[in-house]
Amino acid sequence: MATKKKAAKPAAKKSAPSAAKSAASKTAAKKSTAAAKAPAGKKTKYVYTWGAAKADGNGTMKALLGGKGANLAEMTRIGLPVPPGFTITTEVCTYYYANRKSYPQELQAQMEAGVRNMEKIMDSKFGDAKGLPLLVAVRSGARDSMPGMMDTILNLGLNDQTVLSLAAVTKNERFAWDCYRRFVQMYGDVVLGVQKREGEDHEPFEVVIEDFKHEKYGKDIIDSDLTADDQKELVKRFKALVKERTGKGFPSDPWDQLRGAAGAVFSSWMNDRAIVYRRKYGIPAEWGTAVNVQAMVYGNTGETSGSGVAFTRNPANGVNEFYGEFLVNAQGEDVVAGVRTPEPVINMKKAMPKSYAELMKVRTILEKHFKDVQDVEFTVQEGKLFMLQTRNGKRTAAAALKFSMDMVKEKLIDWETAILRNPAEQLDQLLAPIFDAAEVKKVKAIATGLPAGPGAASGKVYLNADRAVLAEARGERVLLVRTETSPEDLRGMIAAEGILTSKGGVSSHAALVARQMGKVCVCGAAGVEIDYDKKTVTAGGKTFKEGDFMSIDGTAGTVYGGELKTAPSEIIAGIVSNDKAAKATEKFKGFTQLMKWCADATRMSVRTNADTPEQTRIALAFGAQGIGLTRTEHMFFEGDRIDAMREMILATNLPARKEALAKLLPYQREDFTGIFKELKGLPATIRLLDPPLHEFLPHTKEQQLDLAKKIGVPVETIIQRVHDLHEFNPMLGHRGCRLGIAYPEITEMQARAIFEAAADVAKKKIKVKPEVMIPLVGFKKEFDLQAEIVHRVAKEVMGEKKVKFEYQVGTMIEVPRGALTADQIAENAEFFSFGTNDLTQTALGISRDDMGAFLMPYTESDVFKKNPFATLDTVGVGQLIETAVSKGRKTRPDIKLGICGEHGGDPESVVFCHQVGLNYVSCSPYRVPVARLAAAQAALAEKRASGAKPAAAKKAAKPAKKAAKKK
Amino acid sequence: MATKKKAAKPAAKKSAPSAAKSAASKTAAKKSTAAAKAPAGKKTKYVYTWGAAKADGNGTMKALLGGKGANLAEMTRIGLPVPPGFTITTEVCTYYYANRKSYPQELQAQMEAGVRNMEKIMDSKFGDAKGLPLLVAVRSGARDSMPGMMDTILNLGLNDQTVLSLAAVTKNERFAWDCYRRFVQMYGDVVLGVQKREGEDHEPFEVVIEDFKHEKYGKDIIDSDLTADDQKELVKRFKALVKERTGKGFPSDPWDQLRGAAGAVFSSWMNDRAIVYRRKYGIPAEWGTAVNVQAMVYGNTGETSGSGVAFTRNPANGVNEFYGEFLVNAQGEDVVAGVRTPEPVINMKKAMPKSYAELMKVRTILEKHFKDVQDVEFTVQEGKLFMLQTRNGKRTAAAALKFSMDMVKEKLIDWETAILRNPAEQLDQLLAPIFDAAEVKKVKAIATGLPAGPGAASGKVYLNADRAVLAEARGERVLLVRTETSPEDLRGMIAAEGILTSKGGVSSHAALVARQMGKVCVCGAAGVEIDYDKKTVTAGGKTFKEGDFMSIDGTAGTVYGGELKTAPSEIIAGIVSNDKAAKATEKFKGFTQLMKWCADATRMSVRTNADTPEQTRIALAFGAQGIGLTRTEHMFFEGDRIDAMREMILATNLPARKEALAKLLPYQREDFTGIFKELKGLPATIRLLDPPLHEFLPHTKEQQLDLAKKIGVPVETIIQRVHDLHEFNPMLGHRGCRLGIAYPEITEMQARAIFEAAADVAKKKIKVKPEVMIPLVGFKKEFDLQAEIVHRVAKEVMGEKKVKFEYQVGTMIEVPRGALTADQIAENAEFFSFGTNDLTQTALGISRDDMGAFLMPYTESDVFKKNPFATLDTVGVGQLIETAVSKGRKTRPDIKLGICGEHGGDPESVVFCHQVGLNYVSCSPYRVPVARLAAAQAALAEKRASGAKPAAAKKAAKPAKKAAKKK
Repeated sequence: MATKKKAAKPAAKKSAPSAAKSAASKTAAKKSTAAAKAPAGKKTKYVYTWGAAKADGNGTMKALLGGKGANLAEMTRIGLPVPPGFTITTEVCTYYYANRKSYPQELQAQMEAGVRNMEKIMDSKFGDAKGLPLLVAVRSGARDSMPGMMDTILNLGLNDQTVLSLAAVTKNERFAWDCYRRFVQMYGDVVLGVQKREGEDHEPFEVVIEDFKHEKYGKDIIDSDLTADDQKELVKRFKALVKERTGKGFPSDPWDQLRGAAGAVFSSWMNDRAIVYRRKYGIPAEWGTAVNVQAMVYGNTGETSGSGVAFTRNPANGVNEFYGEFLVNAQGEDVVAGVRTPEPVINMKKAMPKSYAELMKVRTILEKHFKDVQDVEFTVQEGKLFMLQTRNGKRTAAAALKFSMDMVKEKLIDWETAILRNPAEQLDQLLAPIFDAAEVKKVKAIATGLPAGPGAASGKVYLNADRAVLAEARGERVLLVRTETSPEDLRGMIAAEGILTSKGGVSSHAALVARQMGKVCVCGAAGVEIDYDKKTVTAGGKTFKEGDFMSIDGTAGTVYGGELKTAPSEIIAGIVSNDKAAKATEKFKGFTQLMKWCADATRMSVRTNADTPEQTRIALAFGAQGIGLTRTEHMFFEGDRIDAMREMILATNLPARKEALAKLLPYQREDFTGIFKELKGLPATIRLLDPPLHEFLPHTKEQQLDLAKKIGVPVETIIQRVHDLHEFNPMLGHRGCRLGIAYPEITEMQARAIFEAAADVAKKKIKVKPEVMIPLVGFKKEFDLQAEIVHRVAKEVMGEKKVKFEYQVGTMIEVPRGALTADQIAENAEFFSFGTNDLTQTALGISRDDMGAFLMPYTESDVFKKNPFATLDTVGVGQLIETAVSKGRKTRPDIKLGICGEHGGDPESVVFCHQVGLNYVSCSPYRVPVARLAAAQAALAEKRASGAKPAAAKKAAKPAKKAAKKK
Repeated sequence: MATKKKAAKPAAKKSAPSAAKSAASKTAAKKSTAAAKAPAGKKTKYVYTWGAAKADGNGTMKALLGGKGANLAEMTRIGLPVPPGFTITTEVCTYYYANRKSYPQELQAQMEAGVRNMEKIMDSKFGDAKGLPLLVAVRSGARDSMPGMMDTILNLGLNDQTVLSLAAVTKNERFAWDCYRRFVQMYGDVVLGVQKREGEDHEPFEVVIEDFKHEKYGKDIIDSDLTADDQKELVKRFKALVKERTGKGFPSDPWDQLRGAAGAVFSSWMNDRAIVYRRKYGIPAEWGTAVNVQAMVYGNTGETSGSGVAFTRNPANGVNEFYGEFLVNAQGEDVVAGVRTPEPVINMKKAMPKSYAELMKVRTILEKHFKDVQDVEFTVQEGKLFMLQTRNGKRTAAAALKFSMDMVKEKLIDWETAILRNPAEQLDQLLAPIFDAAEVKKVKAIATGLPAGPGAASGKVYLNADRAVLAEARGERVLLVRTETSPEDLRGMIAAEGILTSKGGVSSHAALVARQMGKVCVCGAAGVEIDYDKKTVTAGGKTFKEGDFMSIDGTAGTVYGGELKTAPSEIIAGIVSNDKAAKATEKFKGFTQLMKWCADATRMSVRTNADTPEQTRIALAFGAQGIGLTRTEHMFFEGDRIDAMREMILATNLPARKEALAKLLPYQREDFTGIFKELKGLPATIRLLDPPLHEFLPHTKEQQLDLAKKIGVPVETIIQRVHDLHEFNPMLGHRGCRLGIAYPEITEMQARAIFEAAADVAKKKIKVKPEVMIPLVGFKKEFDLQAEIVHRVAKEVMGEKKVKFEYQVGTMIEVPRGALTADQIAENAEFFSFGTNDLTQTALGISRDDMGAFLMPYTESDVFKKNPFATLDTVGVGQLIETAVSKGRKTRPDIKLGICGEHGGDPESVVFCHQVGLNYVSCSPYRVPVARLAAAQAALAEKRASGAKPAAAKKAAKPAKKAAKKK
């Protein structure tokens, strides 16, 4: 009865919704803690055996058996050749800590039964000093693999007697003593704690080896050159060391060894590194770890033996081929260690055709069973294949896409699962132009910075926007290199293939604009020194003049000297340039199919942040369902517009200001007309002027003199105005609706431009849906004052143009007070868009432009789990969003809610947006596919958590699960 | 039955706790709205009469009768000679708007009864064309007096017939026709809406008068020179104007006139100005206004008549003397209008001894009845005294103090009421040095700015800190004049009598430091132009050189040229300088008594923000119960310390940084030792280093060169470091605990200085209670990292010094995320102190240093009701505080909660702090009395709201009520 109950529990745990995994599991874990404290009299099953196609456990029992134990049981169950063994459950770990590091009474008997089962299957005896002794590997196995914990002890069961029988049976004395020596060293280190002390430079066992080598050979030789006798001597010396350090002899009884190893695994659950790791990822200590005890098999017993690691399909490009490496007469660790160069696994076909054929069968069984590409380890011992491990294989974005498309065709998975199989955070790998891998191998990075705009770009270095534009006009490929960028560099950035800055973070102006435009960008590359006077860039000891080639990899954040070849991805070529060849590729077709499925799965819609008709066109091609943010100020930097803008700012009275604004009106109207035409009735959220006015004025004396001549104003006036407009904290200064309230005529001009454009387009029988957004609202009154102007102008324009169209007026929630008083603001605001960039800055009190100074210590000391400007701080900023959502909906149940901060393109943040019930997310055009994928995955995770298709949910819901964990 | 119900209701409304007044009254008002809609058949009492010592209403019925009506009824009831009249209740107003501007059926009959009552008492008839006609004044009367509403219509009841009988009976034809002319003009304007139209420059009635004067006299003559015939002609022309503009004749039936006037009062309740006012002060429209109809009496019928306005005691200095002005043969408006110069009211004693004696009796009755100083209006008509109005008199702080002390002695009020009678926001008037009033009259202000540090100061102008210090050393009185100040000016500010800046708001560095030190300060005086090169200040067309005298009044914000005499207040002299003469003054004794009473009434304690032993001493003398904030960085600006600080900042590696820190350690320890000694066991909250490091470095080339020489570092290094440390938004940059996390050695040094000082003092058997405060915490982890260092150092120091002392480690809550995650932070933090300056900046997204650019439009358009950096924004920032209080207490029920922002010295904000349950407020030393008074008032308001002493609560709870209204 008790056994059955236990067995049933893990399954119940498993069915907990994956999105709520952490919380639900914590409860479950607590329950089993209570169970572990039950009187020892009741017979609880603490040991789960597997072997010879039978297993007590199965793959769903990860909570009780750990990931490794559950998978070994599962492989055994489906008939794969797995060396037998048993798992000591996580409940024993819990018991161990709840009962002053003691074990349940019945554990020993159950372990003995487990060992007997292994002995029977392996036809050998644990501690056998006559025949082949049963040796075992002991490994930890938590629910998720966890760094910091004890890993593996091999060859357990060896002692001065069994080493002799092993040598005799295998007829390989050196092999036997090498195993023994390694075992004593590993056990002495991990279990008995014979480790480097304070003041010592090297591990004590290594010191013994070095000393012996020098003593005997007078020099350092490699371990494999040690003879059997050498190994014997080392075992002796190791044991003496153990005695000296611990005061006790090395345990020779295999059962003592086994109990000691299990205890070491449990102890390692509470070591510092494991605690730090659990704290970081929110894993409760109550979960505990399991211990796996498995019969040793050897791939190094001769030419009919070998070991390998492989993927059931190619994880780099996704091709359906068995892919991996293999070594004859070697153990698993030799394949990885790189001492000998392994062969492609296909060579096994010739070397050991029978085993290879068997492996091919295993491959098919594994994929059919796990319905995903597997990463396996195997050993062939004298012609007999053993599977040691299987787990889902890691893969590139390209491989993930191909796997998922192929497996739907093969009917291994359904289309929903296919969506979940493509990690959203990797998707832009598919979109980025890439350097030719062979080229990159030839060169060395000369600096590294932050990977701010994914992709690869080579170009001639230019240090200012004007020269960059000229060079581009001459047909050169340009790399714009600056300490940091500002709106004045915009034309230069447009002209450049890529942007490299020596200052600023992933949310700096350079990075923001780069992502907006899909430009390659490396920023904050501290090793890059720029001399504007000499027009040189120095990095990695090399100096580049303007016109010299440099290259940057915005996916990796690396900087190279010289030119490297790049190519656009097939997807960009197909969607943006409508390239037919690109469209015919399998990659393009797979991507398009994936996006179609996403559209079917999603609840939230995805919009784009776009300031021009061209950006709008690209975003729509990527599937955006409207514009979530048009920044009107970006429009002021093109051509002559900036002059009119400056005239407006320099105006000292209302009529002069209105005159300058009148010059800007037609430009703005033209922009909006273009955007409305592209949108064909899709909504466009247009934000009124946001940045402080000083951003538009020239700040160098030279530029000021130029402007003075151009617009006929004394240069002193310009200098004075720049001085007057200077702000201590521009982020918190005279910007947003504060401008429109101080200068209502600006709001009036912008509203007029929007509505005149809307009227003109509507007259051409094209639907328009303008949504006017008032920025930086913290007080209801601010919104009301601005909305009043917008509504009045709308009425005027409709009257003048004799046409009707729908429109909305709403606000950006981007200061905490706006979120906290959302109920009041919603009385008149028809939509909220969360400006999470500024909301993060204000809620955290952190300027993203100045964060560089403490980002490193903050990341290293775990204050930031992730950069809060890249991934939404759901605990703090998220709380404000939840407050605003609930207060806003309370006042106005049909209020439209979205997000237009940079977070709108971050998968984890998109999942949060889905969970709090936003209507849409908006991101830069090239992030639209990522957001669409993340939004679809969030919807599917929610659907599966609610009970639909529980069986398929398991592995699939990974991305959503991760996000939930962060919360 | 129905009548009784109605009468009972206002009393019930009155008993609502005053702190919750607004909400409770809204509910009550809604109920009466419903009642007003009841079928007209039920006889509701809509008219309340008074006269001849009888009144239907009384002083508590302000909700139903309005303030004026209730007070007139009350005065009548207590036997004072009030001209009879009646009040049409606020319920009629509600009915009027609920029923398409119609009146309840029974109103007319009730009004007729009201008129009959007046006729009987006045022995005259309404509309009497034979005998003396009864004329009435019609006035609006809301619960609180409210600008924007219709004020008064006098002489109603006059027409072409009654004017003749009035002339006959008074034997004064000119008087009668003047009354009639004024009535037609007033009624035509206010009731019939004959007003200036768009495009017209003048009021139409005034145009008629001007035209007539020029027509008849060929020039402009004054109104009183118009003859009876002129008035007759004007009445004719006025009536024609009314006919032309309205299409109807002027109403001649007195009843039509009366109904029209009542309608005009009700209509004015909904005019734009009234709506704006109500919105601003949160008065619900449902309250409505009452209408008062009162018999006219005349002070201008001859030498035995007269009018006056007076206070029952002197409202300027508080002396118990009848104080006011009086005119024989004049109406009330003549006394105020200033056409004739009124005489002191004492002169009445000779002019009309009988009436004066009667007035003295009234004075005593009023004070005994209202238990407060009254502001009265009266008229003597042919020897007979009439009281027209009484209300609580406005008063200066000095008068308020004396009134309250005297009235306790006179047993008119108890000590709790005395506390409530002193407006906390006025208290620092008592502390400020003042200009001699006579001197000020002789000169004219040459500029105005913000009153940033109350008081008056004269001194020689100096434009930089060094020269100011030298001048002060020469024995000069100094006025430091700068565009704005920075920490480098600190020594100059200490040396100066007063500080004048041309830039910056009430929360600028200058203002903050001025208040901290109790310095006189005017800041942001835009009219003051400073030329640092020429060393001149220009204002009001005058130019002052360094060394010339200027004077500033920091209470009024005015700037004067030349020297004006000042004197410190008796209270400062007594408490700070222990001046015996000052201590003997009545003012000093009254103040001390008030503070003693406050101590008895208060729940919250009051601490101080102090950085030096001297500031601490002053604050304790003012009754502070410990330090709520010591800013350790202020200590770094004195003497050589800044050099060691700069060495630390310029250090490029840890050992060099530690070496520089070691130099700072003894300085810091010494400061803390001094503070602990002053405190004698009272707690001291010490904040670790907060400002960004660049604030400590010199920013001009000259200073940089000086420093380079001084500390032997290449100037390029200094320039580079200044450049590296530059921040875009320093407020949100590398400061607060972010410094301590990046440079733990700074935290370690500061902790060591604090604890070594504590240990040294503790060894001398003086108790110490250090509370170490980690600034700018937004993440629990930030707190934990810093607290770990502090706890470790505490343990070390106690071990080294072999002494034990108690200490706490807590944090400042000053970014929204800190408040939102207070439950997490409280796990290890033992106290929270709300840093409301920064919390306001971040919650509102507003930099207080940059707010000047939009403060004006924001105040004018009512976005800000009050400057949020002066008075806490309880809706937004307050919500964060409430969240942090409740989350903090949930985790740690005994967590200590306080506030140390500038708001800790603002009375309205102190009341909020009491309401949310903080343990203490902390403010600058000279604000301590204000905070103590406000805290006591908050506690008393709460006590009275809870039901204790309901009778006395009414007028007393004013300050608390105001704060609650803002919420």
